[in-house]
Amino acid sequence: MDMTLEETADDIRSMRVRGAAKISRAAAQAIRDVAMAFKGNSVEDMRNILREAAVTLLGTRPSAVSLRNGVNYTLAPLHDADTNDVESLRKKVSEKADEFIARSHEALKLIGEYGSRRIPQKGIVMTHCNSQAALSAILKAHDDGKDIRVYATESRPWKQGHITARALAEAGVPVTLIVDSAIRHFIDTVDIVIVGADTVTSSGTVINKIGTSVMALCAKESRVPVIVCAETYKFSPRSARGEMVEIEERDPAEVADPGAFPGVTIANPVFDVTPPEYITAIVTEKGLISPYAAFEIIKEFEGEFK
Amino acid sequence: MDMTLEETADDIRSMRVRGAAKISRAAAQAIRDVAMAFKGNSVEDMRNILREAAVTLLGTRPSAVSLRNGVNYTLAPLHDADTNDVESLRKKVSEKADEFIARSHEALKLIGEYGSRRIPQKGIVMTHCNSQAALSAILKAHDDGKDIRVYATESRPWKQGHITARALAEAGVPVTLIVDSAIRHFIDTVDIVIVGADTVTSSGTVINKIGTSVMALCAKESRVPVIVCAETYKFSPRSARGEMVEIEERDPAEVADPGAFPGVTIANPVFDVTPPEYITAIVTEKGLISPYAAFEIIKEFEGEFK
Amino acid sequence: MDMTLEETADDIRSMRVRGAAKISRAAAQAIRDVAMAFKGNSVEDMRNILREAAVTLLGTRPSAVSLRNGVNYTLAPLHDADTNDVESLRKKVSEKADEFIARSHEALKLIGEYGSRRIPQKGIVMTHCNSQAALSAILKAHDDGKDIRVYATESRPWKQGHITARALAEAGVPVTLIVDSAIRHFIDTVDIVIVGADTVTSSGTVINKIGTSVMALCAKESRVPVIVCAETYKFSPRSARGEMVEIEERDPAEVADPGAFPGVTIANPVFDVTPPEYITAIVTEKGLISPYAAFEIIKEFEGEFK
Amino acid sequence: MDMTLEETADDIRSMRVRGAAKISRAAAQAIRDVAMAFKGNSVEDMRNILREAAVTLLGTRPSAVSLRNGVNYTLAPLHDADTNDVESLRKKVSEKADEFIARSHEALKLIGEYGSRRIPQKGIVMTHCNSQAALSAILKAHDDGKDIRVYATESRPWKQGHITARALAEAGVPVTLIVDSAIRHFIDTVDIVIVGADTVTSSGTVINKIGTSVMALCAKESRVPVIVCAETYKFSPRSARGEMVEIEERDPAEVADPGAFPGVTIANPVFDVTPPEYITAIVTEKGLISPYAAFEIIKEFEGEFK
Amino acid sequence: MDMTLEETADDIRSMRVRGAAKISRAAAQAIRDVAMAFKGNSVEDMRNILREAAVTLLGTRPSAVSLRNGVNYTLAPLHDADTNDVESLRKKVSEKADEFIARSHEALKLIGEYGSRRIPQKGIVMTHCNSQAALSAILKAHDDGKDIRVYATESRPWKQGHITARALAEAGVPVTLIVDSAIRHFIDTVDIVIVGADTVTSSGTVINKIGTSVMALCAKESRVPVIVCAETYKFSPRSARGEMVEIEERDPAEVADPGAFPGVTIANPVFDVTPPEYITAIVTEKGLISPYAAFEIIKEFEGEFK
Amino acid sequence: MDMTLEETADDIRSMRVRGAAKISRAAAQAIRDVAMAFKGNSVEDMRNILREAAVTLLGTRPSAVSLRNGVNYTLAPLHDADTNDVESLRKKVSEKADEFIARSHEALKLIGEYGSRRIPQKGIVMTHCNSQAALSAILKAHDDGKDIRVYATESRPWKQGHITARALAEAGVPVTLIVDSAIRHFIDTVDIVIVGADTVTSSGTVINKIGTSVMALCAKESRVPVIVCAETYKFSPRSARGEMVEIEERDPAEVADPGAFPGVTIANPVFDVTPPEYITAIVTEKGLISPYAAFEIIKEFEGEFK
Repeated sequence: MDMTLEETADDIRSMRVRGAAKISRAAAQAIRDVAMAFKGNSVEDMRNILREAAVTLLGTRPSAVSLRNGVNYTLAPLHDADTNDVESLRKKVSEKADEFIARSHEALKLIGEYGSRRIPQKGIVMTHCNSQAALSAILKAHDDGKDIRVYATESRPWKQGHITARALAEAGVPVTLIVDSAIRHFIDTVDIVIVGADTVTSSGTVINKIGTSVMALCAKESRVPVIVCAETYKFSPRSARGEMVEIEERDPAEVADPGAFPGVTIANPVFDVTPPEYITAIVTEKGLISPYAAFEIIKEFEGEFK
Repeated sequence: MDMTLEETADDIRSMRVRGAAKISRAAAQAIRDVAMAFKGNSVEDMRNILREAAVTLLGTRPSAVSLRNGVNYTLAPLHDADTNDVESLRKKVSEKADEFIARSHEALKLIGEYGSRRIPQKGIVMTHCNSQAALSAILKAHDDGKDIRVYATESRPWKQGHITARALAEAGVPVTLIVDSAIRHFIDTVDIVIVGADTVTSSGTVINKIGTSVMALCAKESRVPVIVCAETYKFSPRSARGEMVEIEERDPAEVADPGAFPGVTIANPVFDVTPPEYITAIVTEKGLISPYAAFEIIKEFEGEFK
Repeated sequence: MDMTLEETADDIRSMRVRGAAKISRAAAQAIRDVAMAFKGNSVEDMRNILREAAVTLLGTRPSAVSLRNGVNYTLAPLHDADTNDVESLRKKVSEKADEFIARSHEALKLIGEYGSRRIPQKGIVMTHCNSQAALSAILKAHDDGKDIRVYATESRPWKQGHITARALAEAGVPVTLIVDSAIRHFIDTVDIVIVGADTVTSSGTVINKIGTSVMALCAKESRVPVIVCAETYKFSPRSARGEMVEIEERDPAEVADPGAFPGVTIANPVFDVTPPEYITAIVTEKGLISPYAAFEIIKEFEGEFK
Repeated sequence: MDMTLEETADDIRSMRVRGAAKISRAAAQAIRDVAMAFKGNSVEDMRNILREAAVTLLGTRPSAVSLRNGVNYTLAPLHDADTNDVESLRKKVSEKADEFIARSHEALKLIGEYGSRRIPQKGIVMTHCNSQAALSAILKAHDDGKDIRVYATESRPWKQGHITARALAEAGVPVTLIVDSAIRHFIDTVDIVIVGADTVTSSGTVINKIGTSVMALCAKESRVPVIVCAETYKFSPRSARGEMVEIEERDPAEVADPGAFPGVTIANPVFDVTPPEYITAIVTEKGLISPYAAFEIIKEFEGEFK
Repeated sequence: MDMTLEETADDIRSMRVRGAAKISRAAAQAIRDVAMAFKGNSVEDMRNILREAAVTLLGTRPSAVSLRNGVNYTLAPLHDADTNDVESLRKKVSEKADEFIARSHEALKLIGEYGSRRIPQKGIVMTHCNSQAALSAILKAHDDGKDIRVYATESRPWKQGHITARALAEAGVPVTLIVDSAIRHFIDTVDIVIVGADTVTSSGTVINKIGTSVMALCAKESRVPVIVCAETYKFSPRSARGEMVEIEERDPAEVADPGAFPGVTIANPVFDVTPPEYITAIVTEKGLISPYAAFEIIKEFEGEFK
Repeated sequence: MDMTLEETADDIRSMRVRGAAKISRAAAQAIRDVAMAFKGNSVEDMRNILREAAVTLLGTRPSAVSLRNGVNYTLAPLHDADTNDVESLRKKVSEKADEFIARSHEALKLIGEYGSRRIPQKGIVMTHCNSQAALSAILKAHDDGKDIRVYATESRPWKQGHITARALAEAGVPVTLIVDSAIRHFIDTVDIVIVGADTVTSSGTVINKIGTSVMALCAKESRVPVIVCAETYKFSPRSARGEMVEIEERDPAEVADPGAFPGVTIANPVFDVTPPEYITAIVTEKGLISPYAAFEIIKEFEGEFK
């Protein structure tokens, strides 16, 4: 692939490439491209260029945990004392990038399998926004011949729910599109809520698309199980050191044209925080766990994801 | 006013005139106009024409309780055995219509006063959709010199929250517009939720714009009081006889263009149901009550509103 | 009817006649029979005999509120200063008895109508034990063409749920019989819980067949509405003066043969107490109310039921 | 009694006379004394002097609802158009004062009776601060031979719990004194919480000594019933018009010597607000009601207590 | 022991041998017997026969996790590449069976010890059905001189609570037998709930005898701790891969004679699902843990129990 | 340091040295002093003297987990078979004591850092009693320039909250001192609760100063996060074996002068138990975890802390 680093960074910044999994794979790929394209002889120069690439990529969405995990994973060879020459560093970084991308795809597949088993033979699923991992579980259940129907919220302001609704309809899954505020009206008939995650913290909270916590709360009120599908690289090691996940605030114009609302402030937070007590289980490629066991996942992978 | 009955009916049907209070006043006015315009001599003919007018008006939004209460109030003279001639029936219906409209305006004013007293001297209010009664309370608090800020949800699909945001900004109240699913993200800092009501039932549930119950649930979770502003003619006598309030379902095209979503169902319920346990108090023109005391209000007015 | 007072008392004591409505009607009938059978000339003698009849009847199930209300209602003429001769007392007591019985039947019919309206067009009902009032609502919904299914608990130790299951099956309502402890396993799919009441107190608690409070709690946990069907003579005026409703304890042998369990205590409480926060509404013949409005019903009827 | 108005006002202000019932009776008495002591001939002068007395008394504790109700009740004759001369006004005001005081005592007795019936034959009571009405119920239960034990909190900062503990011990009731923060540690073994009220609002909230809401919350968590003992003149008609009950803030020195804490703010709110969902019932002299029925009590007495 | 495989399978199928621990030990024993009885020379034949035995045993109660864990544990040598001859396979399988049985007995003893420490010196225990592990803890507390009383539910339809009641009475523990629906009536006075488990899943839910979840819910409502006693071989590794535990449905005739109920469906689910939020702790032989830590137990033993 | 063992024991017993961290460090130091002061030649004598020192120290506050962990840590060389002579035992014990003290200080610093990150840039903190670890986090946040205000409860009976208030005021942090029962009145405006811990059990409950559980419950009711700061040596390995943490009961005279309250019992429990569902996270020096993951911490350190 010949996409330059700047193009990838720009794609992530502008949300042309979006979704925690996609941006982290794109970043791994971009770093690999930088390593491949390096023409010099000095391994120190190469290290510096790779570090700069990391800074550029991390700056596109500074609060994205999977992006940070993807970049750190790929650049682990920088901390490898034995990697003293350009070629071996190039090779190792390239391998790490491939490995991250392969593991990401494999994780998605496993999560789809594990998650699909939670969906009843005949039942109604509700989902929010557009999560690859959640969709993977829903589509697997459909492929396995389960008789399911799905409620998809439109997910303002970007309305990524439209993508979800179309993807399900194309796959032959009966799907009903609703406005975000209609969640509680419909949740009574729902058998299971399945959503994705942007970040999972060490105490078990899940940061995901704005509105996820509202759906989880409504589900809890009606005793509907809530399944979060999340690859392990979405778990935040920094949260284990007390760090709060910063909630990204995006352009007000995504909500409404500020010019048309003189004197009105428009707020556009991208994510919200779902506490673990509203989450039945998190499905990872390492198994289905209680959200309260998140620290376990982080501890296990801390060697890899700093 | 020379607006014909059909025009009024059409305005209500198409939501050019909307809001429980406005449609019931418009209906009272329309009946008054029919009574004034009646040219015949037979009181029986007049009765029939008024009854037909009632049927037409009630058919515009069959599940609207205030509309039914307004029509019944205005047409109470139909049940008056002494009203035997055209002129006295015309006079009485006309008086009833004026009385209903005056009481509606007076109620709004009192509710504004009572409701405004619940708003702290300095605090943050959250509201949903566009309720005259709720706005009346918020603006009164502002007029009284209270230092308040307001979160207004956009209220998909009609985005009546835009009207609310503009009205507040014009009055000089600092207001922040947010998407509906951001409720829980912001509720923590909110001091009071103030919303309107379409209907109040005898067991204390409140039917209001889709999403109201979600806001009330989030408020409850964060121990934020929820005040519902509702004139007494929004209380449903029929609910005391067990009747469920039918949730109106409107055109899917209000949510998204069905043509752009082949194979996708689009659902568009207009209201949802908030249970009394999430409502701190209902402010009526007869006083501030617990929602659980709704039966009292209905019993007291049953003579008038059948 | 020529059944003697003692026979009626015995039937109630032994639960051959059981259910709050049936025993109160039987008591009214028995008092009427005593009044009719009185042969003397002294109105004082007649008063004494009627008072003794009351004592006998109230002693059969001392904690039964509807029994007390029925007896008090029928014997109200005893407090009537103008009733000075045997014939007028006989006539008035007889009329009161007929009136009570007629009102009881009428109440059942109205409750059936109002209650049935809460049942969805297509849905699943859960009920406990064998309540005439609850059955009245369920059967009315079925008669109105609603497509309903019912879960009936067996209701240990008397298994009155068997009567309910048979009555529903005979009426053509699909019904599933379950053990009492399976409530929570099935409640998720239930749309509405409908039960009867033995007693309603002034603060809104409902005393009913042991297990009712468990079903209500499970329903609350799953956001399933709970409707209690109760004639107004089941509301306890004494509870408004702080009196606790005594929970009747019946023969251990109804649960298990004590001889087969040496050293084991067997407890057999007949009723339990459901708090108002688990009850969506109480359907009475005076209308559907919040349980918290119970004091209203008691106040209104206190003139009649002391 | 020859205590001057100023002395009474000063006693209330300084909390030498305290407790909602006592201050309202003292105020009624003081107004009666003013009426008795009036020497002039002009009824207008007398009205003015009585109005001034009211202003003085209401100013001692401006947020005390029972004080306002007591003053208004006693001065109702001021609004009586027929009372045109000094003697008849003196007589009527005097009668009203006596009536208020008698009703207050009678109410306390009835509340004691009704409340005591909620206490089990053998059981553990918890109470907070020093409420005459609550003590009345506990002591009545003890007098009736019930085998009870009491936990009394010390109730910082004034430690009125010491008075409660001594009063119970003197009456022969086993009592354990605990610090306020030990509530939750002991609540598990408690059978019933009984407290008083300073004010009850139209939506059912109870304002009472700081810490009452904490005890009620802990009781709710452990499914322990909470009984509030409150004479009907503690219900606030103004709250039905939306008015918030102002929480009195007293001298920081009651908590700690400010001089010993340079740079530290000391806050000393006297009351807190208990929401109705934590209150099982309110025992009034008019009967035991759900807190949600408070509006009923207010409506009924509004003619008397404005 | 000379009981044939078929007899063991039949005993488990017909519930002559029942309880998660007993059936898994019986299965281990049966496999050992098959290994001992094998007469051939071909290790491949022996492997096939052992695999067939596993299939037969797993088929008796396909949803029983401990049965599967017991069989897998015993047959681990099948996966052992070095076990190439009949005698060594026989020896290893036999050792594994003995080891499993010994560990099961040892676990029961440790759980009894650990669990008994949670029971207060003087207190009331509630238990459901007939769990060896729960009984082990209760009897240990009694043996240690603690002054305890027990409520035992009859546990319809099999009434295994009768066995529990008798076992406790024989050991000298005061025990009260109650119907299943009386749980909430008595839970207020209970200090601790102790039950067993059929299966524990990786997200911390407990599958146990129908009604367990109802008892746990009632305990939670009254802030009574719920202790689940479960050997680690009751933890389901498959649940960590998303698999739902299938709830076994047994013969309707266990509930009521279907012939006596024409037109009535009889449902007889054996287990229900208790969510972790109602469980204070799970006592295993590896220590007392939060149910949310179940994944830890599964991870640790995954090498052994696949 | 020349403080004798007896002096240290006395200081701990009398609470001149108090707080879980301080007493465990003082105990480590005292054991070191004993080892240093030993004059004999027999390693067996030395072992005995060290064991007696342990017994003395553990007896000062028998239910203090950190004390036990500190003593066990320091005396680990007693179990070391290779330590056969006086000098090597002295050296090892001395090193262990220094190590424990150093780790304790280091833990406090890390917890301060991790905990401070949970405090918002501008916000209100509430704390209870006087916890070094909690203060460490609050002061770090202040040092980092965060704009915070603190509510400190006085913490009866010892009023250690006075120490907290003074320490914060001296550091320049705006602080408001309140009585313990005012928690719920103020919690609405609080952004985060930060407290310490005396003990953490394997199922995630926290034992801390009486009133901590009340604050946590109030925080939960208002959706305010609760952070517990606890070094890992406060986690109780014995609780993993089912052992209950005994709640220390101290001298009644600390609450009130018993002589002034004839016939009154005064109870003075020092700690209460906060269940994990009210705790958002525990901050340890090993990272921020869910309380439900406590078993993990215990398992990891069990080698060291028996």
